[in-house]
Amino acid sequence: MQLLENAILERGRVKDGEVLKVDAFLNHQMDVALINELGKEFFRRFQDQGVTKILTIEASGIGIACITAQHFGVPVVFAKKTQSRNIDGEVLTSQVTSFTHQRNYDIIVSARFLDPSDRVLLIDDFLAKGSAMLGLISLVQQSGAQIVGAGICIEKGFDVGGEAIRSLGIHVESLAVIKEMQNGQIVFDHEIEPA
Amino acid sequence: MQLLENAILERGRVKDGEVLKVDAFLNHQMDVALINELGKEFFRRFQDQGVTKILTIEASGIGIACITAQHFGVPVVFAKKTQSRNIDGEVLTSQVTSFTHQRNYDIIVSARFLDPSDRVLLIDDFLAKGSAMLGLISLVQQSGAQIVGAGICIEKGFDVGGEAIRSLGIHVESLAVIKEMQNGQIVFDHEIEPA
Repeated sequence: MQLLENAILERGRVKDGEVLKVDAFLNHQMDVALINELGKEFFRRFQDQGVTKILTIEASGIGIACITAQHFGVPVVFAKKTQSRNIDGEVLTSQVTSFTHQRNYDIIVSARFLDPSDRVLLIDDFLAKGSAMLGLISLVQQSGAQIVGAGICIEKGFDVGGEAIRSLGIHVESLAVIKEMQNGQIVFDHEIEPA
Repeated sequence: MQLLENAILERGRVKDGEVLKVDAFLNHQMDVALINELGKEFFRRFQDQGVTKILTIEASGIGIACITAQHFGVPVVFAKKTQSRNIDGEVLTSQVTSFTHQRNYDIIVSARFLDPSDRVLLIDDFLAKGSAMLGLISLVQQSGAQIVGAGICIEKGFDVGGEAIRSLGIHVESLAVIKEMQNGQIVFDHEIEPA
């Protein structure tokens, strides 16, 4: 998506080789007008899928998911990152590895908010190693709901997550796919298509 | 605000005396259509204040802030909760006490995203003891920006936070103020007005 690629080139910063900082518009300061265009594009790509709920993970995914959900007219549920399990009632849980913070943590969601009749669209800001997305997939599978796909803002195409998720048969739509980052230069991949 | 009070009465749950759970529509599952009405109401109340930025704190505040920001046409910045300080560059930080989780944590925001010329509206889902809101106020004060007010979805009027924030001269607008919760019965207060 040209608009997002332009934002990455103009307002993103490459740090320490393979770290892309998009904190100026996507995941610390949030450009809600831009994010609304991303939400429209997710809607365009998944509008025929009968989505009943959007599932994301705190924290960066929440704003993107909420703005996207306005286009679908469905609620958002966000999985909570926690080292304790302090949601009351029955919960679904899975484990996620953070490579950024080099630790494992549990993610949880109240079982009340994922129903077997739900058709769930997963939304997140980044797809790199895919651990958070695999955690969300596990939560949905435990609930008995159907996953209709995953909408990702920025996929690191050179990392393993995209293949890991697509190989499960999940329809992944990434609005920008980064092929490589070398010497601070970002090259986009326009070849990756959904499975 | 009648719409929010109705949602609290119909979809909220009182647990263990003074804990109000609104996870069905506000801070775990998120009813984005309802939240859009809250955003419109925040806009109605603060539209003349020249707001240039909305500041909130992860995680529950982010979706509410993003949807509200669409009405103002301004970006959102969310402070991160962290026990380490891993944002690159200069950061502003303050300490918050979580009474729910019985611990202290630092909140941080990149100094790049709060400018002395900014007129900042604070947004959060709850105001109870006020610790998170006081932390956000400290961040804005460190940046030299101006606080134009605080927009709160649900204020626990029987707790100390509202008085603590208003006594600083900050214009607080709470869309629902709870006077008391006894035996699971919620009574709203329609007397609290902004300072």
